[in-house]
Amino acid sequence: MKHQFLLFVSSFSLVLCDLASYLRERENFLENENSRFLGSNLELTSSESLVNDYLMNLKYAELDYGFATADFMQSQNFLISKPKYDSSQVFQFIKQMPKGGAIHVHDTAITNLDFLVANVTYRDNLFMCLVDNKINFRFAATKPDDTADCIWSSVSESRQNSGNVEEFDEAIYRNLTLVVPDPFSEYPNINAVWSSFQKYFVTSGGLICYEPVFRDYFYKGLEEFYEDNVQYMEIRTTLPTIYRLDGSVLSDFQAMLTYEEVFAKFKADHPDFSGAKIIYAPSRKVTEETVYDYISLATVLKRSFPDLMAGFDLVGQEDLGVPLIEFLEPILSGQTESDLKYFFHAGETQWNGMSTDLNIIDALLLNATRIGHGYAIAKHPLAIELAKNRNVPIEVCPLSNQVLMLVSDLRNHPATILMADNFPVIISSDDPPVWNASALSYDYYAAFMAMTSRNTDIRFLKQISYNSLFYSTLDGDSKAEAISLFEQKWDIFIQSFLKRILPSFVSYN
Amino acid sequence: MKHQFLLFVSSFSLVLCDLASYLRERENFLENENSRFLGSNLELTSSESLVNDYLMNLKYAELDYGFATADFMQSQNFLISKPKYDSSQVFQFIKQMPKGGAIHVHDTAITNLDFLVANVTYRDNLFMCLVDNKINFRFAATKPDDTADCIWSSVSESRQNSGNVEEFDEAIYRNLTLVVPDPFSEYPNINAVWSSFQKYFVTSGGLICYEPVFRDYFYKGLEEFYEDNVQYMEIRTTLPTIYRLDGSVLSDFQAMLTYEEVFAKFKADHPDFSGAKIIYAPSRKVTEETVYDYISLATVLKRSFPDLMAGFDLVGQEDLGVPLIEFLEPILSGQTESDLKYFFHAGETQWNGMSTDLNIIDALLLNATRIGHGYAIAKHPLAIELAKNRNVPIEVCPLSNQVLMLVSDLRNHPATILMADNFPVIISSDDPPVWNASALSYDYYAAFMAMTSRNTDIRFLKQISYNSLFYSTLDGDSKAEAISLFEQKWDIFIQSFLKRILPSFVSYN
Repeated sequence: MKHQFLLFVSSFSLVLCDLASYLRERENFLENENSRFLGSNLELTSSESLVNDYLMNLKYAELDYGFATADFMQSQNFLISKPKYDSSQVFQFIKQMPKGGAIHVHDTAITNLDFLVANVTYRDNLFMCLVDNKINFRFAATKPDDTADCIWSSVSESRQNSGNVEEFDEAIYRNLTLVVPDPFSEYPNINAVWSSFQKYFVTSGGLICYEPVFRDYFYKGLEEFYEDNVQYMEIRTTLPTIYRLDGSVLSDFQAMLTYEEVFAKFKADHPDFSGAKIIYAPSRKVTEETVYDYISLATVLKRSFPDLMAGFDLVGQEDLGVPLIEFLEPILSGQTESDLKYFFHAGETQWNGMSTDLNIIDALLLNATRIGHGYAIAKHPLAIELAKNRNVPIEVCPLSNQVLMLVSDLRNHPATILMADNFPVIISSDDPPVWNASALSYDYYAAFMAMTSRNTDIRFLKQISYNSLFYSTLDGDSKAEAISLFEQKWDIFIQSFLKRILPSFVSYN
Repeated sequence: MKHQFLLFVSSFSLVLCDLASYLRERENFLENENSRFLGSNLELTSSESLVNDYLMNLKYAELDYGFATADFMQSQNFLISKPKYDSSQVFQFIKQMPKGGAIHVHDTAITNLDFLVANVTYRDNLFMCLVDNKINFRFAATKPDDTADCIWSSVSESRQNSGNVEEFDEAIYRNLTLVVPDPFSEYPNINAVWSSFQKYFVTSGGLICYEPVFRDYFYKGLEEFYEDNVQYMEIRTTLPTIYRLDGSVLSDFQAMLTYEEVFAKFKADHPDFSGAKIIYAPSRKVTEETVYDYISLATVLKRSFPDLMAGFDLVGQEDLGVPLIEFLEPILSGQTESDLKYFFHAGETQWNGMSTDLNIIDALLLNATRIGHGYAIAKHPLAIELAKNRNVPIEVCPLSNQVLMLVSDLRNHPATILMADNFPVIISSDDPPVWNASALSYDYYAAFMAMTSRNTDIRFLKQISYNSLFYSTLDGDSKAEAISLFEQKWDIFIQSFLKRILPSFVSYN
């Protein structure tokens, strides 16, 4: 088989010439391709480039480790792999990095569960009962009346009588978290995990919706995001019923005032926070008549709280809810009557061509300002074009999609494909405490490691941070201020990172 | 909250007018979108439409069942869900349907394992030994010499002495198949499943590469595909060493002659079979010098067997093999010297931006005629454009990708996104017996149910069948004949299906 070497010796220059032109063509191709990913239009300063080199070395090392060991945390369920995230240096970098806004999160799932267990359940006047093996909580001046389903007892007494306070608190924690030792057997399918997920909102609701807790919970939630270097939030709320010790409840107007007060206090305490807004997002499992009510309320709230109220959405497991097409008339009326902005959850599904999937089309045609999740949009080339032309971003929540079983290996997340072609994407975190994440960094990190190319660099992280402000509902001046604040924070981060870290980095290279 | 009804009564005609125009716009959008999926350009005859209605009712029923129960077989590992496939009526339909060609399969994995266990291991002169707990087989006139690793024994004697023939045969079967009761614990990651997968080729190789078995195995393999209504094949081969009872081995030339003879005999026995070709596809885990040898051999074989020999490829776990960029010179020389056609495995990976992923770029720039798997191409928008412009299809093997752990829920397979936008895709089956599939129907079925929209219909199935012939290496006349034969078979299928099935279908609707 050696005879071909003579052949190639004689044609060597020809081959080399071909090879050189091949390599040029390849280089051009890769450059062209690299100019298309989300963030590739940004130009880095020399300081940013140095930090980027540092970051990329960490990214390469983690990818190489994952490749060599086939132990790649982002391809494993976050319910199991979370400790690996915490020990990642890339993750630690991203935690310190300014990240702009968190604009797809839900109000009763923004604060760590420890706050609920270790703080809220230790407050006075809390009662509990077991319904269907799940804990219901209620604050009340005196023990609420028992019903056939629900025999109330004092939490403090029950804790004392339990004989094992640690185990008692652990049991409460287990009633709130989705984290289990073996998610694959615990959640055999998407409906099973959604069922547990929704129980969180029932159990936590009794704790969070007590007025004094409500204020503290939000303040604490804002603080957690702020400490994670998030400067702005848009928070979806169902406007749950907020109650007082005497059993009286807040009106929707009073609830909005409460948000406004908490946000104002937080901003006063943290002048470098750009604020927070509310998206009214009640359950989608309702009749058209109820959606008329929703839209009417949203319109009133928008008029009363023009700065606080960003717009309208519908929530709940989309596959088992009512699709947008059933609500066209009230939704269209909301736009014609009052210029309400829409932020519909749409396409949070794998069921290609079924009603949830088609929500993508309706969300776009109904002029949604942004699309929540939009997981299914990648299967709709025309919708991709329309969203790009109208500059409608999707709010991608990678860990939520993984934990709620749309995708197991995050490298298969369809937003990977969209982001490779500069589709407008925002990364957010949905309900981080329910799966033992927190704030925003875990999702930024997951996206950076699993949903971009090996060579995709800090420009991607800066771009998704920009996007979270650029596509926010902050108006002209506020938006410019927020972006300017972000850039200040970014520059400080880059400079202080260089000062703190680079000397040791250089010395080890 | 009822006051808005007055509002809407007064503006009812306005809303209705908006609604009507909205619904028109939506209808247009969906029509436009439906004109973009793979196969949407085909027009159905009225007979085809009737059969299509029948098929679509079955598809809807299966999707609705999957949706209602969250028990959707294509989102479950085929190693477990295979019995569900067999009981599907859509699958039974697709089995009967003419499917064109199977043009991405590997020579030593085309025939059911039962043939190896129940037929081949019962032949005379077979010996076995255990190496690293895996069975090695060898046919020989007398017992081969033992080595430190390998103590040979007669299979027939061992079977007799085992005391339990059924368990003995079952143990052989277990040494060949990837099917295990709990694939998730048995194969914790992609390298683990690939390791077992590659052991199949070692164990089966000793059986298949014995010359008389070799002929029978291929004839039987062709028969299985033929009975699955496949009319044409392109088969990748490493040109393994084929041996005789006396220990002598066939030259590569003799091996090619053997293929030629088996294919010719099969075609003589089955006049409505369009034939089979060979793609020489040796291991990619080699040096550049070896690839020069490969290319040289491929060139000689192409000259000697111009009809039989379709072209060249490299095989083996791509992530752990050598990337194409290491072999540019021999590969470029093969094209300039001898016009060799390439069918590279490329992008069978999740590692975005790493060497296997970049094989996609090299395969395209090296003018591959088709790309094997091409799983990663969806993450490369420029590669998608180039492939579309040059009309280079990818050979997608859904069940292989699932079993070999690129994707768990086939609805996340990236070819879904490509096929929604009319990217040229061929569906094939890779190594079906290793995961207890067979021939081609399982993969067509998986693609139809999980990788298309709910409303994607028989035109998709007809188009992928067309594609398997259109993108084959059959030359002008042969290709026209094969396509014409396919159309005859298709018409007969449609007509006979209508005759047999439609009366009962109509009466039940």
